[in-house]
Amino acid sequence: MRTLFFVALAGFALAQEPQFTKDNRLMKPADYREWVYLSSGIGMTYGPARESAPGDNPAFENVFVNPRAYKAFKETGAWPQGTIFVLEIRKSESKGSINNGGHYQSDLQRFEAEVKDSRFADGWAFFGFSEATDSAQAIPKSAGCQACHSKNGAVDNTFVQFYPTLLPVAKAKGTVKKAISRE
Amino acid sequence: MRTLFFVALAGFALAQEPQFTKDNRLMKPADYREWVYLSSGIGMTYGPARESAPGDNPAFENVFVNPRAYKAFKETGAWPQGTIFVLEIRKSESKGSINNGGHYQSDLQRFEAEVKDSRFADGWAFFGFSEATDSAQAIPKSAGCQACHSKNGAVDNTFVQFYPTLLPVAKAKGTVKKAISRE
Repeated sequence: MRTLFFVALAGFALAQEPQFTKDNRLMKPADYREWVYLSSGIGMTYGPARESAPGDNPAFENVFVNPRAYKAFKETGAWPQGTIFVLEIRKSESKGSINNGGHYQSDLQRFEAEVKDSRFADGWAFFGFSEATDSAQAIPKSAGCQACHSKNGAVDNTFVQFYPTLLPVAKAKGTVKKAISRE
Repeated sequence: MRTLFFVALAGFALAQEPQFTKDNRLMKPADYREWVYLSSGIGMTYGPARESAPGDNPAFENVFVNPRAYKAFKETGAWPQGTIFVLEIRKSESKGSINNGGHYQSDLQRFEAEVKDSRFADGWAFFGFSEATDSAQAIPKSAGCQACHSKNGAVDNTFVQFYPTLLPVAKAKGTVKKAISRE
């Protein structure tokens, strides 16, 4: 009985860690909606090429992180090996039910994962998923994810400057790596 | 050792349940950011009085629910006794760090809780919190929270029509109580 309990507990914990195939493809994180939510943005744009008008219903982006990594960050201000972020992109809608202004979230469009793991040359790697994807290869370095995160992320490779409950932790622990312009 | 483990586990579970004072004030939920995230909106407006232009930085609203209630909902499409929702209201900002368009979340403004508990006449009650509030009395019925939720919520007293991962569950379980206009 006790063994069964610990097997169940181990299975639960395992589902919250990055899982790889033999050739280092990331298995689709199945239960990320039950991980810890960090923040959302809507229609965020990061460069001149994307500064065009976002239209009437710009996409929402939600960020989740696995609970073990969140707990470690709260204690240390740093991300441990095996940290996995999910950035979920959802459509927005404006008129529906009793709502007549602003935006709320609807269908999932796609999601991306970022993993801290020493098996990757830069220590972090990025992966893209759609509903139909079971596993994904790391996005090539030429896509620029790594370069932008490494240059602009407030803590390590991550945009903690946009996570309002974690930025104060990083400041208190002294892990913010550079001046960040939103302050 | 085993006893200590179960005491710790019980303490953890207790922190995710609504806690009341002797006079039925709701204790401030301390750890709701570690509960299950349901969705976010920005600048949502529900009636003619609030249809005015929301300004450059309309507020974000994030919704969280306690994990036990979420798990029960996934299984049954209904909310159990002891369900507690938190609606968190945060400021939005637009220009900061590398962001030059759209909106991201910043400071907490206030949060509200909705609890399902038979100690309240309507079976549900609403509570308002700020940073400084340790416990809160149920918001009077005259404020209209109950009337609007009961009339317009897709499932029981809750706006499941705005929670994109739960609406399909409610439909599959047959617990959507009325036609909802966003469909």
